[in-house]
Amino acid sequence: MDMIHSWIAYLSGEIHTDWRREIEEGIEQHKLEVLVTSPVTDHRASDHCGVDILGAEESPFWKDNKGARINRIRNQTLLGQADIVIVRFGQKYRQWNAAFDAGYAIALSKPLITIHDEELDHALKEIDSAANATARSTSQVLEILRYITQDTPPGRE
Amino acid sequence: MDMIHSWIAYLSGEIHTDWRREIEEGIEQHKLEVLVTSPVTDHRASDHCGVDILGAEESPFWKDNKGARINRIRNQTLLGQADIVIVRFGQKYRQWNAAFDAGYAIALSKPLITIHDEELDHALKEIDSAANATARSTSQVLEILRYITQDTPPGRE
Amino acid sequence: MDMIHSWIAYLSGEIHTDWRREIEEGIEQHKLEVLVTSPVTDHRASDHCGVDILGAEESPFWKDNKGARINRIRNQTLLGQADIVIVRFGQKYRQWNAAFDAGYAIALSKPLITIHDEELDHALKEIDSAANATARSTSQVLEILRYITQDTPPGRE
Amino acid sequence: MDMIHSWIAYLSGEIHTDWRREIEEGIEQHKLEVLVTSPVTDHRASDHCGVDILGAEESPFWKDNKGARINRIRNQTLLGQADIVIVRFGQKYRQWNAAFDAGYAIALSKPLITIHDEELDHALKEIDSAANATARSTSQVLEILRYITQDTPPGRE
Amino acid sequence: MDMIHSWIAYLSGEIHTDWRREIEEGIEQHKLEVLVTSPVTDHRASDHCGVDILGAEESPFWKDNKGARINRIRNQTLLGQADIVIVRFGQKYRQWNAAFDAGYAIALSKPLITIHDEELDHALKEIDSAANATARSTSQVLEILRYITQDTPPGRE
Amino acid sequence: MDMIHSWIAYLSGEIHTDWRREIEEGIEQHKLEVLVTSPVTDHRASDHCGVDILGAEESPFWKDNKGARINRIRNQTLLGQADIVIVRFGQKYRQWNAAFDAGYAIALSKPLITIHDEELDHALKEIDSAANATARSTSQVLEILRYITQDTPPGRE
Amino acid sequence: MDMIHSWIAYLSGEIHTDWRREIEEGIEQHKLEVLVTSPVTDHRASDHCGVDILGAEESPFWKDNKGARINRIRNQTLLGQADIVIVRFGQKYRQWNAAFDAGYAIALSKPLITIHDEELDHALKEIDSAANATARSTSQVLEILRYITQDTPPGRE
Amino acid sequence: MDMIHSWIAYLSGEIHTDWRREIEEGIEQHKLEVLVTSPVTDHRASDHCGVDILGAEESPFWKDNKGARINRIRNQTLLGQADIVIVRFGQKYRQWNAAFDAGYAIALSKPLITIHDEELDHALKEIDSAANATARSTSQVLEILRYITQDTPPGRE
Repeated sequence: MDMIHSWIAYLSGEIHTDWRREIEEGIEQHKLEVLVTSPVTDHRASDHCGVDILGAEESPFWKDNKGARINRIRNQTLLGQADIVIVRFGQKYRQWNAAFDAGYAIALSKPLITIHDEELDHALKEIDSAANATARSTSQVLEILRYITQDTPPGRE
Repeated sequence: MDMIHSWIAYLSGEIHTDWRREIEEGIEQHKLEVLVTSPVTDHRASDHCGVDILGAEESPFWKDNKGARINRIRNQTLLGQADIVIVRFGQKYRQWNAAFDAGYAIALSKPLITIHDEELDHALKEIDSAANATARSTSQVLEILRYITQDTPPGRE
Repeated sequence: MDMIHSWIAYLSGEIHTDWRREIEEGIEQHKLEVLVTSPVTDHRASDHCGVDILGAEESPFWKDNKGARINRIRNQTLLGQADIVIVRFGQKYRQWNAAFDAGYAIALSKPLITIHDEELDHALKEIDSAANATARSTSQVLEILRYITQDTPPGRE
Repeated sequence: MDMIHSWIAYLSGEIHTDWRREIEEGIEQHKLEVLVTSPVTDHRASDHCGVDILGAEESPFWKDNKGARINRIRNQTLLGQADIVIVRFGQKYRQWNAAFDAGYAIALSKPLITIHDEELDHALKEIDSAANATARSTSQVLEILRYITQDTPPGRE
Repeated sequence: MDMIHSWIAYLSGEIHTDWRREIEEGIEQHKLEVLVTSPVTDHRASDHCGVDILGAEESPFWKDNKGARINRIRNQTLLGQADIVIVRFGQKYRQWNAAFDAGYAIALSKPLITIHDEELDHALKEIDSAANATARSTSQVLEILRYITQDTPPGRE
Repeated sequence: MDMIHSWIAYLSGEIHTDWRREIEEGIEQHKLEVLVTSPVTDHRASDHCGVDILGAEESPFWKDNKGARINRIRNQTLLGQADIVIVRFGQKYRQWNAAFDAGYAIALSKPLITIHDEELDHALKEIDSAANATARSTSQVLEILRYITQDTPPGRE
Repeated sequence: MDMIHSWIAYLSGEIHTDWRREIEEGIEQHKLEVLVTSPVTDHRASDHCGVDILGAEESPFWKDNKGARINRIRNQTLLGQADIVIVRFGQKYRQWNAAFDAGYAIALSKPLITIHDEELDHALKEIDSAANATARSTSQVLEILRYITQDTPPGRE
Repeated sequence: MDMIHSWIAYLSGEIHTDWRREIEEGIEQHKLEVLVTSPVTDHRASDHCGVDILGAEESPFWKDNKGARINRIRNQTLLGQADIVIVRFGQKYRQWNAAFDAGYAIALSKPLITIHDEELDHALKEIDSAANATARSTSQVLEILRYITQDTPPGRE
């Protein structure tokens, strides 16, 4: 009967650790009314979708470009539907696309949560200064999601 | 079958009186198709969420800031989803955040109802002049909600 | 399973004839997937809601103003949710608020259909030139609604 | 050296009285930093521009339509550039296009001033309730323009 | 329980081949969560709707104009609701309205997929450069839809 | 002293005839306050700018794509600054990019004038139905520009 | 030759101390390229403008309302033109309109600087958390203005 | 007499090489009508502005945050005024703020040019796929600026 949709959280960034699954499991465990969306996280598929679907390219630049444009269909749409954008930055890779998503989210006035270790604080200071919170762990993110969504306002139960 | 969502009313402002519960009970009693959302109204939780979740701060300024940014995730999102914003100003405190929400709502072209006593009329004249109605009691607000939503247009029954 | 909502048509303008009921009955008869919304059409209630709810006014100007602002909560919200705005102009009264709604709709890039007799063509030329169609009868409007909604695209059945 | 442009006021509505000239002369006399724009006020040209420029039409409806669309190029552009929209309603004609402009202005969040006699108060209550001021005379409008622009803020002199 | 709506794809362009049906059948076959919308594809109805509904016109220009404005009610609304716009250009006709829809979609920041043969690459280079993908066949489009929607993010199953 | 800028007209479409020069000369001759902008009209430069500046491509598709994206920097910016968009369609080529610009302009609520012969009326009916005027010659366009800009409102002289 | 306008700062809030003049003098002294705008700061005029210009009101509520709506013409326009909004909160009064302006600015994505003493930190935590900086003195504000504007980028000298 | 402003290019990203100066000198040398804006490029000032102006912080996180928020006043404003955003990524540092600016620009529909070496192509593929051009050198950027601005349209000379 309550037509207010669940909160939608778009998870952007690092794809080499388990952080998305931790958040999904926590949401399920705490029965939070949060739906999670994300980019395609199958690394190989994400890199090759352009040439796999639309045909080979000789130049690696255009191969990347072809795939990235297809990925943007998904990412831009899901990010645009999200109520909150959560971006994880890792130690190992330059997640420029994660920072790109953060900038895109801020320009659309979406609330932003970043997740990263202290070592990255200085490098990420511009993005953190635009964020609503900087978490160090997925459990902190889950706490925030629980806090902002579970004090159920009247009519949402 | 009717996919037009219920009206959503965001209740901002004073947290030391019972006015939100009165509105919720009135909505239930009159079976109005109005969903109510609001900021976290647990005063302690609202003040401490930043340090409770993300870790202690020595400076009270950053403690407040950390918590307020988390609260803004919720408030900005729910206010953005609301069809109507209702703001209660009380005698006792400076509800600057309530006035902030009123300005935010007006800039987004949301209809605004204020509730306050006559004693505050002069201090609130700028906000009242931007509002669609200034009520003195929650029962007046309920009357307005009933009036604007219950003359059910065809197709919404 | 189809989450695309029905078409929503906001019916603005003349309140002294039966045109809204004719459109509702036609929609039901032809089983069109169109929801109809409209301003409060109880003339007395619409004129008096301000003073009835919020207290008497000595000056007729403020009495009107108080009521009209409350009506705008409803009208602005429903017009903003509509996919299509239909405005009927009659011979007898100056429906300035109907023309106001038409301008509001055009500035929001909403499709607009006007309904009026030929005698009013010259007086309404600016509004008709911004409209998608000028109908002479409710049956023409129903034909348009049937045409634009019933050639059901795949996936909407 | 001051690059903030002068205030721009778009004057919409009645074309059969002298009110625009009165406002222009008052602006000049009081040396207000206000530029005035308006629709084409040559009644004949405004009615005939479509067929005069683009060729005759047999049907009066399309003759009106052709002209009105050309007039909208000017009106929509100048209204969109205006800081403030001033609309005069007269006793004699149904100025539906004036009400249309008022609705268009409000949807764009432009400040609105209406000018009309008390006799029209009830018929114009919806528009007046969206306006920042309802004046009875051009001299009141001039007073408002003087008041809001002449308390020259630092840097604008 | 999942309130995120299915993806909505608006299919614009060529109406003389079977490409829309191929896409619909592929969506059904692969059980993709994609709803398809499109303009009225009954060529005769689309050309004549204006005069059929609102009355005959002597001039072919106004006959076309009358019908096209009615079609725009549907097209603009459905395109505005779409998550993704897919436009097919054929060899035989100048689908200027297809290119018009593409421009409209890009200005609204909608993802765009074009479909056309290599022979048209040069003529369509501006539109392709704004598109996320240029496909040569409906099966490639289906692959893209499958890829961007089926790696189902958590919470959407 | 008058800070309202001149009208800006963006001329899109056909590049094989003299129509842009005719408009410029007419503007100069009639001393209209209209600035004209346009895409790069040097056909060779426009086609080759991508590879000329950023390096050769083996595939003609990417050669076109590279150039078209650079042209879009200019076209999107100038069209976005324009008060009015004028698009000429010719008999000989499929000016899909012209139709693309028309759609882009309409989505941004820019006034649109099309220029083309009667033979193209049916093929262009959707675009013409969104336009403010359909002219047959550059002299008609000049008449419109003169009409909408020369009845100089007070303060613009 | 440089058409980038100077920075525009809108000064909202407290009207009983000298802070605006301090900022203006500092701007002049440091030759900063900053223009300052503000509401009408003549307290009496600001309170009485409604009845002074448009006629007396018996009810103090409508007297206030009438004046506040006129003041909003100025405030909303200048705030909308500002690059940066600076709001001063004082100890003595409830500056609800200042907080309203802050909310309005944030919803429009304007950078915000607040000025207030530490005693008000807790009461203003929501607004400060949305601000780019919280200053304790006008000299700090001047330092910020100098810093963000004086590292003159090439082409602005 | 020509009131169309010069093109404004915002230069974001790498601050450890000379690329901004090269672009400025090239613009001057070729007399391009391009104004260049950029973040504060004095590295020390940019890192310390928060604590230098508003007072020391014990925690490095808040020191960074305080400064970054002040820098965002400038960056967000100048990027918002730019016609074109140019972002340079270098080999040595993770310029996450550069990628953030790129995302911000794309969400605002600003044309984007990236500059980086081939080694970074894969890491930057998402951003490059949203860009209008990927250049390898400042001279290529200058060529693009010359090309899009120098084919001076009539009326801009």
